[in-house]
Amino acid sequence: MQVAIFDTVVSTPLRMLRNLDGILGKAEAAVADGKLKEEDVLHARLAPDMFDFTRQVQLVTDFAKSPPARLAGVEVPKFPDEEASLAQLRSRVGKVAEFVKTFEPAQFEGAADRQVVIPLRDRTLDMKGSDYLLGFAQPNFYFHYTTAYALLRHLGIEIGKRDFIGG
Amino acid sequence: MQVAIFDTVVSTPLRMLRNLDGILGKAEAAVADGKLKEEDVLHARLAPDMFDFTRQVQLVTDFAKSPPARLAGVEVPKFPDEEASLAQLRSRVGKVAEFVKTFEPAQFEGAADRQVVIPLRDRTLDMKGSDYLLGFAQPNFYFHYTTAYALLRHLGIEIGKRDFIGG
Repeated sequence: MQVAIFDTVVSTPLRMLRNLDGILGKAEAAVADGKLKEEDVLHARLAPDMFDFTRQVQLVTDFAKSPPARLAGVEVPKFPDEEASLAQLRSRVGKVAEFVKTFEPAQFEGAADRQVVIPLRDRTLDMKGSDYLLGFAQPNFYFHYTTAYALLRHLGIEIGKRDFIGG
Repeated sequence: MQVAIFDTVVSTPLRMLRNLDGILGKAEAAVADGKLKEEDVLHARLAPDMFDFTRQVQLVTDFAKSPPARLAGVEVPKFPDEEASLAQLRSRVGKVAEFVKTFEPAQFEGAADRQVVIPLRDRTLDMKGSDYLLGFAQPNFYFHYTTAYALLRHLGIEIGKRDFIGG
């Protein structure tokens, strides 16, 4: 028995992007209320050698737009990593959601067996579509999404797991 | 196009449980080296109203054992939440991995359309198998796995994303 790749790389990530947008909205509200400085949110990190909040959100969106594109054989759109406000991060989340919405189930015919090649900083990954999806794309998406959430929790912003899972 | 439920709830989680065991081993090593007190690791949290490290690891294992069981129509084994050391947490991870290994692909026939009913603290979830898997089981598994990892990073334990994704 199987689950549809479309649900895995389109429907579910769209729901999580909506949740992320809501969470970013709560961060904006905390800044507007004077509880936190926007700069402190944007550059929050849990360890000195860890990516900051801004980079975590950029990476969530990267791991939302790449999987449907790579699995459907479509070019992955590039967004420059230059957001400098929560509003700009929300805008990026919105743009990626619009891109993800363009996919149709039929585009994923044969995707599980398609070879996916990904150039990384220091090596090239070459995997079957289903291995890429389950062993790389999904864990990375949730890794950065959860880390972004955890950073805001650590800063005292009032969010809970329902904001994260939503829908 | 689809991916096998077996790969989603057996093969991939088994790899992540192995990775989690490795990460717990690095935490044990940091304690043995005198860098951290075991109690401080076990009870670390990122916010005062958030579950501590011990509970996060218990929840990762809960969200590893429940999905294959519920989707295959097998009773979910219960483990008392009473681990009080890193060694005991590793033992729980190992026991859950042994349980997950007992499943065969054929047990997931019809699972995507099976109705899954989950009693929560304050409500009952009643969902189609595929919705349970993608919208509840997977996000929860990665949520608690990433949070456990993030807590150790925050404590300064030398782990990186490759320890998390592994395999």
